[in-house]
Amino acid sequence: MDTPHERRSARRGRKAESPLLKHPFQLLENPLSPLTLLDASQVELLHDASMQILEKTGIVFMDVEALDLWEQAGAKVDRSAQLVKIDRGLLLALVARAPARFTWRARNPARCVPVGGKSVTFAPIGGMAYAASLETGRRPGTMADYEAFIKLAHVCNVLHFNGNEMVAPQDVNPSVRHLHRLYKAILLTDKALIEAAHGRIISQDVLNMIEMVFGGLQGDPVVGGIINASSPLRYDQRMSGGLINFARHGQVVVVTPFILAGAMAPLTVAAALAQQNAEALAGIALTQLVQPGAPVIYGGFTTNVDMKSGSPAFGTPEGAWALTVGAQLARRYHLPYRGSGSLNTAKIPDAQAAYETMWTMWPAVLACTNFIFQSMGWLDGGLTASYEKFVLDAEMAAMFYHFLAGFEINEETLALDMIALVGPGGHHFDTPHTQAHYSTAFFETSLADRQGYETWVAQGSQDAYQRANRVWKDLLTSYEAPELDPGIEQGLREYVEKRGRELAGKNLYD
Amino acid sequence: MDTPHERRSARRGRKAESPLLKHPFQLLENPLSPLTLLDASQVELLHDASMQILEKTGIVFMDVEALDLWEQAGAKVDRSAQLVKIDRGLLLALVARAPARFTWRARNPARCVPVGGKSVTFAPIGGMAYAASLETGRRPGTMADYEAFIKLAHVCNVLHFNGNEMVAPQDVNPSVRHLHRLYKAILLTDKALIEAAHGRIISQDVLNMIEMVFGGLQGDPVVGGIINASSPLRYDQRMSGGLINFARHGQVVVVTPFILAGAMAPLTVAAALAQQNAEALAGIALTQLVQPGAPVIYGGFTTNVDMKSGSPAFGTPEGAWALTVGAQLARRYHLPYRGSGSLNTAKIPDAQAAYETMWTMWPAVLACTNFIFQSMGWLDGGLTASYEKFVLDAEMAAMFYHFLAGFEINEETLALDMIALVGPGGHHFDTPHTQAHYSTAFFETSLADRQGYETWVAQGSQDAYQRANRVWKDLLTSYEAPELDPGIEQGLREYVEKRGRELAGKNLYD
Repeated sequence: MDTPHERRSARRGRKAESPLLKHPFQLLENPLSPLTLLDASQVELLHDASMQILEKTGIVFMDVEALDLWEQAGAKVDRSAQLVKIDRGLLLALVARAPARFTWRARNPARCVPVGGKSVTFAPIGGMAYAASLETGRRPGTMADYEAFIKLAHVCNVLHFNGNEMVAPQDVNPSVRHLHRLYKAILLTDKALIEAAHGRIISQDVLNMIEMVFGGLQGDPVVGGIINASSPLRYDQRMSGGLINFARHGQVVVVTPFILAGAMAPLTVAAALAQQNAEALAGIALTQLVQPGAPVIYGGFTTNVDMKSGSPAFGTPEGAWALTVGAQLARRYHLPYRGSGSLNTAKIPDAQAAYETMWTMWPAVLACTNFIFQSMGWLDGGLTASYEKFVLDAEMAAMFYHFLAGFEINEETLALDMIALVGPGGHHFDTPHTQAHYSTAFFETSLADRQGYETWVAQGSQDAYQRANRVWKDLLTSYEAPELDPGIEQGLREYVEKRGRELAGKNLYD
Repeated sequence: MDTPHERRSARRGRKAESPLLKHPFQLLENPLSPLTLLDASQVELLHDASMQILEKTGIVFMDVEALDLWEQAGAKVDRSAQLVKIDRGLLLALVARAPARFTWRARNPARCVPVGGKSVTFAPIGGMAYAASLETGRRPGTMADYEAFIKLAHVCNVLHFNGNEMVAPQDVNPSVRHLHRLYKAILLTDKALIEAAHGRIISQDVLNMIEMVFGGLQGDPVVGGIINASSPLRYDQRMSGGLINFARHGQVVVVTPFILAGAMAPLTVAAALAQQNAEALAGIALTQLVQPGAPVIYGGFTTNVDMKSGSPAFGTPEGAWALTVGAQLARRYHLPYRGSGSLNTAKIPDAQAAYETMWTMWPAVLACTNFIFQSMGWLDGGLTASYEKFVLDAEMAAMFYHFLAGFEINEETLALDMIALVGPGGHHFDTPHTQAHYSTAFFETSLADRQGYETWVAQGSQDAYQRANRVWKDLLTSYEAPELDPGIEQGLREYVEKRGRELAGKNLYD
């Protein structure tokens, strides 16, 4: 496979590379029984509660076309309130149209990604206002930051996806930001792409540009976007429009209610999950009203507010419950599941950042989350894209690849002859078995320091934050742009320029 | 229950306490299906390999009584090599005598701990040469450090056990260290105790002192100790003698091979686990030769060497495999299982310390480890007891209590009336439901900072290491000694003085 590592290996004289760069692009499956917290009857309690919510309280779609579609389908629509009440029979029939799995295509055919089933995939962060590094601390994101994160996501093969607003290029006018963002992403990576599906204008630009790259939008999807319910129980104009446009063109909609228990939902996790389920299924059903069979992912992003500060809390036991049970609910409806990977509220990549992330990534992987969004670089409740945190999270993902691959048990690996040869009280440092296997035996770390204390002190007493700083710079140095047909690139550039003139200064959500 | 918190609550004027102090002493069960990596046929492959090791290669016991016992039982004993070869029939018959579960008694009857089955317990670190804190960095451990850690383990109710050499009091002569250590532990805590079972002299002093506290050693065990195989395939004089003495008196032996794949075993995890299983079962069988029905725990402590530095690696995917499969093996023989909790190779409580710990504690808890040893304060490959890391690990344990407790799904928690009342687009900050539940709704953190970035900066930009420093000092301030009968205390003091004179300057393992 044409990995950056293999291409780079042809060059000479480079210093030892981060093991992250040796990791080949590969698909990942979780062969274990998924982590489950609820039994089937408890899942049905949540299911029934969510059905009651949609039947009795209803849900708002702030979009005329969405209301038309629901009315034609037979739902009870209150036009003045933009409120839709949906019977469970109608709802479940629509949800049943959605595929249980699909392939998300990349412009490099070797990097297409299966979504659903046992597949586990890692996807980048999205929506960060700030960028942060050890040297600069937190500062407003720029186009240079955005490009750097796209490059990092490209060279890190543990990530299956790329694109999206990993950090907002605040030095680019908001009315044309999406154009420049996607243009750069198409140039800088050949991985499967995520981009904003917000509103009809932006989503159409995305579809137009992506169509130029792939020569059409038929067949398996080639781009996807996150659609958040504006919880509680509401899809605003922007989200409804984007959802409809992406679904109509057969592109991936990741329907994700954003719920903080105690703010956008009651503060019990049971209620928050029942509401999440109602919102997610209503959005998913709408994709199937627009386009039966459209690829869609059930997203969970439920956690709690911190009752002391009023701020969102991430990487909590409650968040781990919601993430795990969200997977159970998605499986209940035979839908691919989106969770998150690197959530935390720490301000720097310290012990808190690491443990809160582990309280997210462990349940995400073990619950067999098919699309682990926000998996690399998240800091400070999602406000900040951190270069060093990206390295930490990539290391965690690499460890999960290794963990899930398991180990072989056979005559060669049991090595009973070596155990007999060395015998009681000996050591295995230099047996033929050790010599034969030692270079590939164990997971190779890019970040952990396992030297003796004195050596560590002699080398400057660096913590993981400082070491990660060296790693991301090394990763960036190794970046090489994938090839792109010059005609396509020119067409994209002209499109961005033309639309840039048309949209300059406009509010894209009018 | 007479928790430190409740006693302290009677006092007035104290500042807000760490939520760790509010955590009641309670038993913990893991109600989930244990995390498993191997299917039953793969477990049998490891089992069969370990039987072959004991039958063909054999295992060394450097102790005359052990060799006598094995010979009388019918094993093939080579006296000159101190080598024992054990048929699987004999071995399994002996292992079958061990209880699947038992109660480990504390001198406070409310703090007795069940071991085995679904029970998950947290136990302290042991064997650290150094102590470290934010202010001092790493330095040789002292009796003052030892006492401080005993006090921390006493006030932190997330810990079920106390005692053991959490840090070596290097200012006390090694020949009498065990006496002063246990004397202080008995005085300073009323939790179930761990102490050294190393050799016949030390273990007998421990049994004598413990007998004075409990008035006898009959019935359920009242102390336990870790016995490490000197891998590969060897129990040295010290470990054999301690194992025999503790088993003879019906006290808990935690039989734990200490295996680094690539050093004390072949570098494949399959071979390391087969060897671990052979060593553990041979030690467990010996306890049952000494005293049928003696309480014993199957211990796993297998990880790999770092092939770059040659140092031990902890918190690795390989370690997580071994920890999880160790639990499967223990269940295979209906034995309680010991794993570890806070293993890492970091030099300070940074992101590496946190994530490597989470790569240990997550599999430990999910695999339903009955006795999670080394669960609080471990740093630097086990060389160092860290005050701040203790806080970090206690927070992790508290989160697992909360996680495993799960959440209720019923009419009250689903709160459909509140969802209907608030309706689409509203918020739940001040509903009656939120008002009624908000103070107890969510896990309350002792360590995470969830404030806004600007507030965090204004308050000094403290990382988790600095915040943990404040927490352990607050915990120590809240410490109050449990009551102890003055006659028992005097008897113990006299015993320590008498034995101190007898043992002064002696090598305890001659």
